[in-house]
Amino acid sequence: MAQDEFSIIRQYFHDVGPECADVRLGIGDDAAVIAVPDGMQLAVSIDTLISGVHFPPDTAAADVAAKALAVNLSDLAAMAATPSWFLLSISLPGFDADWLQQFSDGLRRSAERYDVQLIGGDTCRGQLSITVQIAGLVPADGYVSRAGASVGDLVLVSGQLGNAGLGLAHLQGSLELPEELASRCVRALNRPQPRLDLVDFLRNFASAAIDISDGLQGDLGHILEASGCGARIEQGALPVDPWIEQHDLYRYALASGDDYQICCTLAPRHRGEVENWNSQYPERSLTIIGEVVDSGFLLRVGDEWIDLGNHGGFRHFE
Amino acid sequence: MAQDEFSIIRQYFHDVGPECADVRLGIGDDAAVIAVPDGMQLAVSIDTLISGVHFPPDTAAADVAAKALAVNLSDLAAMAATPSWFLLSISLPGFDADWLQQFSDGLRRSAERYDVQLIGGDTCRGQLSITVQIAGLVPADGYVSRAGASVGDLVLVSGQLGNAGLGLAHLQGSLELPEELASRCVRALNRPQPRLDLVDFLRNFASAAIDISDGLQGDLGHILEASGCGARIEQGALPVDPWIEQHDLYRYALASGDDYQICCTLAPRHRGEVENWNSQYPERSLTIIGEVVDSGFLLRVGDEWIDLGNHGGFRHFE
Repeated sequence: MAQDEFSIIRQYFHDVGPECADVRLGIGDDAAVIAVPDGMQLAVSIDTLISGVHFPPDTAAADVAAKALAVNLSDLAAMAATPSWFLLSISLPGFDADWLQQFSDGLRRSAERYDVQLIGGDTCRGQLSITVQIAGLVPADGYVSRAGASVGDLVLVSGQLGNAGLGLAHLQGSLELPEELASRCVRALNRPQPRLDLVDFLRNFASAAIDISDGLQGDLGHILEASGCGARIEQGALPVDPWIEQHDLYRYALASGDDYQICCTLAPRHRGEVENWNSQYPERSLTIIGEVVDSGFLLRVGDEWIDLGNHGGFRHFE
Repeated sequence: MAQDEFSIIRQYFHDVGPECADVRLGIGDDAAVIAVPDGMQLAVSIDTLISGVHFPPDTAAADVAAKALAVNLSDLAAMAATPSWFLLSISLPGFDADWLQQFSDGLRRSAERYDVQLIGGDTCRGQLSITVQIAGLVPADGYVSRAGASVGDLVLVSGQLGNAGLGLAHLQGSLELPEELASRCVRALNRPQPRLDLVDFLRNFASAAIDISDGLQGDLGHILEASGCGARIEQGALPVDPWIEQHDLYRYALASGDDYQICCTLAPRHRGEVENWNSQYPERSLTIIGEVVDSGFLLRVGDEWIDLGNHGGFRHFE
């Protein structure tokens, strides 16, 4: 049975993901070697998930694998980059063949689905922790950053916000959700779906974008800070599950993490593109929640404006 | 005082390393964006260092930073790649301004010295653990892998072997070293020097190369396995401190990790290049320790041949 780091890599981490044409030398050497096609650039990102911090310790291994890849894929989506390859560094408290097999299966399924190849990594002993470093392709200087929002731009979000936060609160026992909603929200928490379907839309129309990993308030705040402007958004426009509206728990949509939807801005002349998208993909709708203004970060709730400027989403070390 | 992940990144991890011309978008967005010059490819590697596993928990923060970068730079050296940029994911048990400042200073000094720019990262709370993902440039298909050794090739190692292992044994109290040697060996353990000075030599002359992170026996074993051949090496030829020879503690040169020297093979026609190197750089000598043969992995000790084939270096999970 595989027990050392080399046999673990051979047994569980070979041939993960479809072969990427840019890879000249894959897993198993001191480094992997990759080419970048003419006219393209690489978007690169790294994210670590730690047991008990980023996911409950009893999360299924396949969910952990899918999530470790998804949070990185989500960063690529936000840059309007197409996934290409990734590196994995995993630290494990011990050798557990079942856990590793399920992790490997989950990783493999996600890598196939999103067309991204595992080309190298590192395995060692320690607290359960998974670091993925991912790379995606963008046409030269065609990336979408956080810094491009202009006054008058529309503010959009994809999908529904707050579900992952509800799922976590449910698992932690601080909220009791109806059964169907609970199951949907725990799934949103454990199996976030990176919005790579939006890559072309963002590349063509967005002035700025970010993925919502720490909550809309914090993440839209990053766009505003990087772009040097403000925003006014409407609580009533936030795309949430009706349960959040009924119980007035919008804070889950505003300030809880792990949704991995996209928040972006776009020039008002592209408003029609949002309508086109929504009529073409009604199940993956985009919602206009407000607009970019000169300064200040305000949320309208009924007739009141609430200042969001000094609040953040989920942050470590606070 | 900085306390959340964003202010930690701003305060401690901005402007680390000289600006790399290939970087289109640096730290602070969902992903960094880089270009790769025409005719070049990227060698990419990832390595995690965990407190208590890869370094003693009381190791100075500046040493931890330098080592986290060095072990990755060493992988690039072994591929004959020139360092370009890196990503950092760090997990910290809590916020400690002094520790972070020293870590940041150490990282900055190493990044300057080896001309590699920090372009992105991730900070979170957990067991002290540092993951560096590094990228270096190689001319298209000009990398040196583990797989190119041929029968008749010379086997070389750089520098001295076993010092880091002695240093660890000394710190752990399992060996008592003379004071000067102890200080030199602890320094070898805590401040490995990646052999980037060898990049041109390897690119021009080596048929295969690896960095010695887990001990010569295991790492040369990887070259032999990847190249489908064997080797015969001479214990008496191993470049070690005289103290190892006096105490017949060659196992530190053969099977202890963390030396981060280079082991490579080269065609016998390049033997003169080794002599050239050694007369040019007597302080950074290369040593021929044996040759590549058809099969088997043997060490000559006096008149005996010892089979190294079934032994490895340091491995996790055993």
